Amino acid sequence: MRIAPVVTLLLSLAAAAAQAPADADVARVRSHPKFAQAMAALDADHDRLVREIVTLTEIPAPPFGERARGDAYLEMLRAHGLANVERDAEGNVMGLRRGAGSGPLIAIAAHLDTVFPEGTDVTVKRDGTRLMAPGIGDDTRSLAVLLAMIRAMDAAGIQTTADILFVGDVGEEGLGDLRGMKHLFQKGPYTGRIDLFISMDGAGAGDDITHGGVGSRRYRVTFKGPGGHSYGAFGLVSPAFAMGLAIAKFSDVIVPRSPKTTFNVGVVGGGTSVNSIPFESWMEIDMRSESPVELQTLERTFQRLMREAAEEENRLRSTAQGRIDVDLKLIGDRPSGETPRDSRLVQVAAAAVRASGMQPTFGYSSTDSNIPISLGIPAITIDSGGRGGRAHSLDEWIDVEKTASLRGIESALVLLLTLAGVS
Amino acid sequence: MRIAPVVTLLLSLAAAAAQAPADADVARVRSHPKFAQAMAALDADHDRLVREIVTLTEIPAPPFGERARGDAYLEMLRAHGLANVERDAEGNVMGLRRGAGSGPLIAIAAHLDTVFPEGTDVTVKRDGTRLMAPGIGDDTRSLAVLLAMIRAMDAAGIQTTADILFVGDVGEEGLGDLRGMKHLFQKGPYTGRIDLFISMDGAGAGDDITHGGVGSRRYRVTFKGPGGHSYGAFGLVSPAFAMGLAIAKFSDVIVPRSPKTTFNVGVVGGGTSVNSIPFESWMEIDMRSESPVELQTLERTFQRLMREAAEEENRLRSTAQGRIDVDLKLIGDRPSGETPRDSRLVQVAAAAVRASGMQPTFGYSSTDSNIPISLGIPAITIDSGGRGGRAHSLDEWIDVEKTASLRGIESALVLLLTLAGVS
Repeated sequence: MRIAPVVTLLLSLAAAAAQAPADADVARVRSHPKFAQAMAALDADHDRLVREIVTLTEIPAPPFGERARGDAYLEMLRAHGLANVERDAEGNVMGLRRGAGSGPLIAIAAHLDTVFPEGTDVTVKRDGTRLMAPGIGDDTRSLAVLLAMIRAMDAAGIQTTADILFVGDVGEEGLGDLRGMKHLFQKGPYTGRIDLFISMDGAGAGDDITHGGVGSRRYRVTFKGPGGHSYGAFGLVSPAFAMGLAIAKFSDVIVPRSPKTTFNVGVVGGGTSVNSIPFESWMEIDMRSESPVELQTLERTFQRLMREAAEEENRLRSTAQGRIDVDLKLIGDRPSGETPRDSRLVQVAAAAVRASGMQPTFGYSSTDSNIPISLGIPAITIDSGGRGGRAHSLDEWIDVEKTASLRGIESALVLLLTLAGVS
Repeated sequence: MRIAPVVTLLLSLAAAAAQAPADADVARVRSHPKFAQAMAALDADHDRLVREIVTLTEIPAPPFGERARGDAYLEMLRAHGLANVERDAEGNVMGLRRGAGSGPLIAIAAHLDTVFPEGTDVTVKRDGTRLMAPGIGDDTRSLAVLLAMIRAMDAAGIQTTADILFVGDVGEEGLGDLRGMKHLFQKGPYTGRIDLFISMDGAGAGDDITHGGVGSRRYRVTFKGPGGHSYGAFGLVSPAFAMGLAIAKFSDVIVPRSPKTTFNVGVVGGGTSVNSIPFESWMEIDMRSESPVELQTLERTFQRLMREAAEEENRLRSTAQGRIDVDLKLIGDRPSGETPRDSRLVQVAAAAVRASGMQPTFGYSSTDSNIPISLGIPAITIDSGGRGGRAHSLDEWIDVEKTASLRGIESALVLLLTLAGVS
């Protein structure tokens, strides 16, 4: 998911200069008679959108377990009359809405996977217009919104100049490490063919434009030792103690607020029984920064602290049966980069937000767009409208109150139609 | 398992006085012609003993998953011609070798369970007389030794005065919390009927006599917090950070060497994904002491440190979305106590060890005997002969070199026959 972009306060001069034609292009789309028809269709269709959000949310889609939700979404894409509806070798499902044939190929995607492991209760609870369930905003609402956009274009009889590829992709979250995007852009049937990319990720008003990829480095850290009986072998070095110390040291690291730099201990594990000194304790950690330099600094500090903790444990307790070793395995590496503020893609997105009565904010995050951006393909991440919060927590929620919900979709539709051209 | 008993150097005067009749009783059993026949049978039978150790070791018996090994052992007990071969409601399997009918009921047990989780490779690797596999010494060798003892008594035509109950019990390790013993002595068909209890636990020469139960207190500690996205919600309190700090503090606690007092962080877990701040991180911890007072002191320190760690995390990071709470759940409580050094049971055990040419050592540990001891039933824990090491680690081993292997069994058999009386 993408969240909380940092607002860039200074608009560059170049961006200011690029603004005028984008506003004019957006205005042209919005004044097209078919656009009003499309918005009327979205309005009439809103209950179905909400139903489909619930349906998709209640199909569990843990990391590496998106198959069932992918099956359902594949059928939905097929039911929406797209061409070349297929699942690629990585598990992405997609279909093409053909344009007049002379335009670029635009891909717009929402991710199928959630961060929640198998067995998480994904039943949607409803309180008025507020819907609560793990994954509902990140990123299930977007999957349903893409379908609603197709229906609205169809209802209004809109033919675009460009072809538009609608994608439900896998592996955006966690250890997925953007595997869906890596396949789409580097191995799948559309390799080398996508000209522009939009990721719709997370519920939110629709005013956030993420045009930069926050780089991340992820590690699985494993402390290994001899293990032994908790009573009989008491006094031997313990991987659990080394890891506790490592976490305590890591949690004390000071990172800059700007460029925003973060770190996390996500999952921890290891040990065989309460009365055994573990022979292995492990944790998965995530580090991110808007700045590649800050990320590298943080990564070096992290590596040093892990080794220090292991060494400290080896000094404190007996190594008679063996020492604590620490293994640092890189499990995630998301490149950073940006689609420039003065690019046509970012400019049109900003104009579309403004035209919907909002003020765009520009930011960096770590999303599916990191991959096309790293390949030099213009890409941004937007949100799917409405309101939402507590992503990645069990009390994740969205609000589907119609006015705010439609405003965000409107902005996304205007962006897509302006880029794709209405014949 | 039971290991590394502390040698009590001072023999009490009462114990010294009790020594003479025990030595005489042991000498009488050893000079019985049928005893020599039994030892000859054990010698001839040694290869079968080793085969059965391997067979039983290779049937996985994780905590709460002893069923398959219990099935196999039940059939073995039946094949050894015991009476009332049965499995009780908790999963203990047992059978009775009837005596002349006028003696006490003696129970001798080895535990079916290992500390190793499902999926652990339990294939036995062999290098000469050295056998390596998780659980092979603790306590699988003992299960096979009990069968060999039955065969030796049968081969020699020995009838005892007492009835002897042979038991393969469940739940000795870890979270099992002695559930097998609790059932045997407090709920099962033999409740109130067992007069003496011997636990055979762990490979070793056979000179260790554990006559005191080391009390233990075990907790599952759960740190809970609001959770959130690793990047977007960075700065919120983290249960993983709180737990790391808690482990670091706990690992620094100073405990007395004597009375021996220990603590351990065994299993750790929690977290949903690498890029989510966990909403829950947990660990299972074990504390033991020969002294109830020291155990209580350690337990209070532990509880204070857990709360301090949670509070420190709440001070260090944002509690805007919720605070870190810590939940301390008692998951294990083994009583302490002792079978006195001058009791007939301990005296006979010591005399049997001496008669086999070894010097007895007396100690405290946490074993199946804790339960009968806490109920006032004389009980000790002995080992099963041979050599062994690295219990509770993946490189656990035993040595089945015949001389040392038989010496330990001899001592155990003499103990059992002296207590049971040879008709």
